[in-house]
Amino acid sequence: MSRKPIEYADATPAVRAVFDDIKRTRNVPDVNNFWKYLAHDPVTLRRTWESVKEVMGPGALDPLVKEMIYVAVSVTNGCGYCIASHTMAARNAGMTEAMFGELMAIVGMANETNRLVSGYRVPIDAAFG
Amino acid sequence: MSRKPIEYADATPAVRAVFDDIKRTRNVPDVNNFWKYLAHDPVTLRRTWESVKEVMGPGALDPLVKEMIYVAVSVTNGCGYCIASHTMAARNAGMTEAMFGELMAIVGMANETNRLVSGYRVPIDAAFG
Amino acid sequence: MSRKPIEYADATPAVRAVFDDIKRTRNVPDVNNFWKYLAHDPVTLRRTWESVKEVMGPGALDPLVKEMIYVAVSVTNGCGYCIASHTMAARNAGMTEAMFGELMAIVGMANETNRLVSGYRVPIDAAFG
Amino acid sequence: MSRKPIEYADATPAVRAVFDDIKRTRNVPDVNNFWKYLAHDPVTLRRTWESVKEVMGPGALDPLVKEMIYVAVSVTNGCGYCIASHTMAARNAGMTEAMFGELMAIVGMANETNRLVSGYRVPIDAAFG
Amino acid sequence: MSRKPIEYADATPAVRAVFDDIKRTRNVPDVNNFWKYLAHDPVTLRRTWESVKEVMGPGALDPLVKEMIYVAVSVTNGCGYCIASHTMAARNAGMTEAMFGELMAIVGMANETNRLVSGYRVPIDAAFG
Amino acid sequence: MSRKPIEYADATPAVRAVFDDIKRTRNVPDVNNFWKYLAHDPVTLRRTWESVKEVMGPGALDPLVKEMIYVAVSVTNGCGYCIASHTMAARNAGMTEAMFGELMAIVGMANETNRLVSGYRVPIDAAFG
Repeated sequence: MSRKPIEYADATPAVRAVFDDIKRTRNVPDVNNFWKYLAHDPVTLRRTWESVKEVMGPGALDPLVKEMIYVAVSVTNGCGYCIASHTMAARNAGMTEAMFGELMAIVGMANETNRLVSGYRVPIDAAFG
Repeated sequence: MSRKPIEYADATPAVRAVFDDIKRTRNVPDVNNFWKYLAHDPVTLRRTWESVKEVMGPGALDPLVKEMIYVAVSVTNGCGYCIASHTMAARNAGMTEAMFGELMAIVGMANETNRLVSGYRVPIDAAFG
Repeated sequence: MSRKPIEYADATPAVRAVFDDIKRTRNVPDVNNFWKYLAHDPVTLRRTWESVKEVMGPGALDPLVKEMIYVAVSVTNGCGYCIASHTMAARNAGMTEAMFGELMAIVGMANETNRLVSGYRVPIDAAFG
Repeated sequence: MSRKPIEYADATPAVRAVFDDIKRTRNVPDVNNFWKYLAHDPVTLRRTWESVKEVMGPGALDPLVKEMIYVAVSVTNGCGYCIASHTMAARNAGMTEAMFGELMAIVGMANETNRLVSGYRVPIDAAFG
Repeated sequence: MSRKPIEYADATPAVRAVFDDIKRTRNVPDVNNFWKYLAHDPVTLRRTWESVKEVMGPGALDPLVKEMIYVAVSVTNGCGYCIASHTMAARNAGMTEAMFGELMAIVGMANETNRLVSGYRVPIDAAFG
Repeated sequence: MSRKPIEYADATPAVRAVFDDIKRTRNVPDVNNFWKYLAHDPVTLRRTWESVKEVMGPGALDPLVKEMIYVAVSVTNGCGYCIASHTMAARNAGMTEAMFGELMAIVGMANETNRLVSGYRVPIDAAFG
């Protein structure tokens, strides 16, 4: 359902308030499609934005690392939209071509060894605690 | 098949050569179960170790970031062994409890928004290139 | 392989028999692409249709709930075709925009907490039996 | 990391406040392991609880349906803890053995047809909109 | 739910009929746990057995290849039970240690390149049709 | 990043060396998009090609079986590019329409029973060792 984005001009005040906060926080002129589609459910829109803002905001990990972790999960899940948007965000946060190459190499390798572990039914070493 | 680990004492020279290189590279007294089970297939053992050594070695990303990306993939795939081993490796590389908390929060959030994108069938913004 | 749909006019009697039963059971003028592609393997076509008819037919759960469960799985797997077809089927069975919003919110949240459980390696409570 | 649950007696006031709200909302004497492990990160604990409370609270879908959707996602992801806890929650909300059987049958069937769609590369019908 | 296996002695005639057919078809003295748990839902038990019997029976692919494909999927999904049971079935059908090693190597490599394709957003070559 | 393929004419000597080896090994006039995109990271390009060449080369399993296993994993992961390329490779290795149909049937069935096992929480039979 909800096969159309909701643009700012057509949004309710509750949706506009979230859109305004996204634009202010990220210093962008418009929100991307993800938020325009979520706007069909203002409760989920607000909750998701508040969560993303908290999780991706300043903390113990720097913004570039956070975005690369987001890309790693999205690639593993094969989410095309998420890969495109978070790869761009990572690039905007300073990811170089070399960093991207290493990120992809690790994601590929982890997906490979995760399955080797399953297939060989490797028991957890006592040392891992 | 291959439901038993292959210990150094019982290993062929080809397997011992890989075990020796792992121990030397990581400065550990013994290899963990993953390698002892892979040793049932010496070709895959060698190839996997050469690949992991190259991918996780020095580069554009620091070792802690690399291990956290490995954890992010392993958590998304639900690989218990891989989560245990790479969480320990990340901790050894300097991951604090606060960093681990943020890592988990991002992995959780990415898995959530990956599905919201799928369910709402959000088209990729032209700006993502 | 099998990169073309098989239309009724070109179908064998065995395939037509399945197509006819789908059209009769669902009261539709034509079958959708899923069945037209499966028709390349008449045995799988018949078995899959018999199974879907049994599983999605009258029972302890009402049709709308059944379709929403189907959507939940398809979104988790990121199957675009399945999301589109079963979201439409759920809407035809009475799913409102508000129901769809809650369905998406639960699917997103479950995918998030599934990973938090993995990452924190939470042991099963004795009370869960 | 964080390989031990945090019990109420050892919890900080911020964690206790969340635990108290969970116990009050669900009318249970103690919180389950999921919350005791998340308590290592009080920010994620609070945010996750607030989100779960909102998503699983009263709305357009009844509580039993919500729990069955949660089970469907958890089974698809193979999350043992989540399957155990939400199957119990669904049972407490009125899920009968017959309903559980149909839930499993749909989840199994959806996972099967999701892959048939991928493998046969079925294009989305124009009618799905 | 249904946390106990249903043994032949306690089974209804409908369940016994399926158990008898499994034992006869596979020439085994007892059915394994999978069927004993599915027996809580006799309709799903019967349908699943009829489907498995048809899919895994004689056809264009030999039994060993069929079992190895089953293992490949189960390893990718991380289903411990399925890996154990179908690895044993493949071994009984003639899988050697060398074949198992190659199977694992391919499954690992495919899981790796699947993600490299996603991450690099590789468009399908026109030649793939 | 790296949203363009790197063609032979624009490639560095290191990349050309890999491209040449792919063309020679597979006896094809040009490499496909996968390699042209990976070429943005010459180290990963070389390592991935060396690994694929080793894993998919002559061994205990015949080339057709190897390609079908690759398809089984790719379908389970929903990787459209990988499904298209390895289905074509399997066809070139001799996969008939009947074989493809059985492959799809097994992949679908395995994905279904993997989830039934999870949902019913079936314990591993002692006999599986």
